[in-house]
Order: sequence, then C-alpha cells, then structure tokens
Amino acid sequence: MKLQVASKILGANERIANENANIMKGKGIFSINLMSSPGAGKTTLLEKTIMSLSPKLKIAVIEGDVAGSDDAERIDKLNIPVIQINTGGGCHLDAGMVQDALKDLPLDGINLLFIENVGNLVCPAAFNLGEDIKVMLLSIAEGHDKPLKYPNMFQTSSALVINKIDLAPYVNADIEKIKKDALSLNPSIKIFEVSCQTGQGVDKWTDWLQTLSS
Amino acid sequence: MKLQVASKILGANERIANENANIMKGKGIFSINLMSSPGAGKTTLLEKTIMSLSPKLKIAVIEGDVAGSDDAERIDKLNIPVIQINTGGGCHLDAGMVQDALKDLPLDGINLLFIENVGNLVCPAAFNLGEDIKVMLLSIAEGHDKPLKYPNMFQTSSALVINKIDLAPYVNADIEKIKKDALSLNPSIKIFEVSCQTGQGVDKWTDWLQTLSS
Repeated sequence: MKLQVASKILGANERIANENANIMKGKGIFSINLMSSPGAGKTTLLEKTIMSLSPKLKIAVIEGDVAGSDDAERIDKLNIPVIQINTGGGCHLDAGMVQDALKDLPLDGINLLFIENVGNLVCPAAFNLGEDIKVMLLSIAEGHDKPLKYPNMFQTSSALVINKIDLAPYVNADIEKIKKDALSLNPSIKIFEVSCQTGQGVDKWTDWLQTLSS
Repeated sequence: MKLQVASKILGANERIANENANIMKGKGIFSINLMSSPGAGKTTLLEKTIMSLSPKLKIAVIEGDVAGSDDAERIDKLNIPVIQINTGGGCHLDAGMVQDALKDLPLDGINLLFIENVGNLVCPAAFNLGEDIKVMLLSIAEGHDKPLKYPNMFQTSSALVINKIDLAPYVNADIEKIKKDALSLNPSIKIFEVSCQTGQGVDKWTDWLQTLSS
C-alpha cells in the first residue's frame, strides 16, 4: 500500500518533470539540479559561479529550502533572476514546485539555470525535476565515508564537486577514498576539487559549465 | 489523499513508538535519538562519550544508515552492544525499525541507549522512535544559517551539540548567531560547544548525560 502510493507520487512527478524539460528545452536553457548535505556550500558555489560566468552566460537560479529566503537574497544581490521555493517541511524539491517557479522566472535569453535543492543527501536524488543533469556537492568536512553511506546521490550525479578543500589539513578526511568510492559507484562521474573560500579550483568547474551550456 | 496517507503512517509510527518507550522504561533505560546532517560527527561523539562514560554507565547503540555498516563497526570496537539498521533508501529511522533492533539487543542492565539516526536535518525530526529525548548535532562547518532554514530539528531537540569548534578559525560561521537563533526557536534548548577531535567541551556534555540517566 505504502509502495503503491510512493510509485503513484513518483509517476506524477515524472510526468511534470518531462513538461519542465520541454519548457526549458524550448527556451534553449541548460539546467542543473544542485544537491548536497546542509551547509556543504551550494549557495556559495553559485555566487562564485555567477561572478565568474555572468554576464557572458545569462544565469537564473531557483532556490529550494525548507524555510526562509536567505539564499535567494544572497543571489538577488548579484542581479540574477531568482525565485525562492519553501517546501514547508518537505525534504526535497519536486517537479511541480519547479514548474510553478518556471512560470514566474523571466526565461527568455537564459542560458543556464541552477536549481538549488533542499540540503539533504537522501531524498533529492529520487525526484527528477526536469533538469539536464544533477550535480552534487560534498564538503570535505563531512568526511570520507559519505559515498558508501549515501550511494544514490553519487550514482545519479553527473559531477561531484568536493568543496572546502582549504579545510583538508584540519579534518580527518581522505579525499582519495572519496574519489575512489564515488568512481566505484559511478565510473563516469566528473570530479572537481574546489575551495569557494579561497577560489582554488573554481575555474575548472566554470570551464566545464561553459562547455555544457554552449 | 497524500495527507491522509501521511497521517496514517505517522499514527502507526506513534503507536509503535509508545510501545518502544514502554519496553525501555521497563528496563530502566534512558534513550537518546541523535540527529544531524551527514558528517556532523554523530558517531565520533558517541565514541568519545562511550570512552568517557563506560563502564560506569552501561551503554548500547542503535546505528541508522541508508547503507553500510561502518558506524556499527566503529562502535563494536569499543565492546558496546550495537545493532546496525539499514533503511535501504529511507531518509530517517522509524519506530518499527527501532522495535526490531530492541528485540535483538541485550537490554538487561543497560542504562543509556543512543539511537543514531540517518544523517538528515529534515525528516528524522518528524518521527518519534520512543526515545526519552532528541539531541541534535551541528558541525560549525555547516555555517550559521541552519537554525532558521531547518527550524523543526531545533524545535524538537532538548539539546544542541555544536561540534568541530576547532574549525571555527577557518570557517565563516558566527557561533553566537547559531546559539541566538536556536534559542529563539526553542528557549529551553541546552547548548554544548565541543570538538570531538581535540576533546574540548566533551566533559560538559558527558556530565549532563550522567545527570539525565542516573
């Protein structure tokens, strides 16, 4: 019974996700569903990315949070179209929420859309939003055991951005183990090592984004 | 329809949680549902706590993870009764999973039971397991915006352990804002500041645990 309901909800989500994909394709928009644990640095990565690529690329952002509008306010300061979604307790975005946001965003001329999901390393991986690719962020401070504990997130992501590598000297985390385990779960995952604080490695990430959305 | 199903699931969970509470009360066990984001340091805090309080207090542990048994293996090395639960994709423990684990644990003589939930700052707060109290951990590296973004977790927890304070000089996180916002959501929340890496502050946490479980 529980499973039947879950499969109905996922089926409805998939249908709306397809509609979203068509809306974005029609506008020539490349879209990225950005996922991570709380506090891994999704919004800070977006700030650095926007500062590097805008206005060369026209970027828009959908922000997903359980509550609050802190993240949208941060993006708004960069003069980028942004919509905040509050899930009100829900632990992930779904395609319907994103479709509502797409209606309110000025989509004409946008090249690249980031959809920042709710901070959560489990549920967001199960719900397509209509995005072109999923990208996940992992803070080095979370430790090296995350790939094997949260395999779905690593299996569904096209890229893994390991963030906060400036903290590597101060935490007991083996970055080679993270990369090895991520690749064992998903041999084609593209891996970036960055520090949004110092800027280290962010250029390789933004170079890659440009190849995707051009 | 979705809401009705959710309320049925929560109702069934509440009934089993009450049974769990009675089982533990009957054995004189004080139990703590330990919750946090992935990688905030729940298992490391348990290791330090066990090393400090065992065998003075007889401690047992239930480990919850999406996949894998890393955490149970770490606790097992300390010669403490431990059971690993894998949710297989589920983003939180529920009372039924805990009841199954309680049947397999040697409960006689145990004073203090830790139930380490799945790393997730959203869903675990909504599901009672039959515990006496909920305690949440927050890594300082997650930043100071977490209380207002994930209010439920802070509202339902009796204590907040702010971990990894040895990283404070290297991250842009305002610990006073974390404390102020947590207290605004939950004026009676007890706050500890610890570093499981250096041991700083762990004694105040273990002193408090002794007052609870005696």
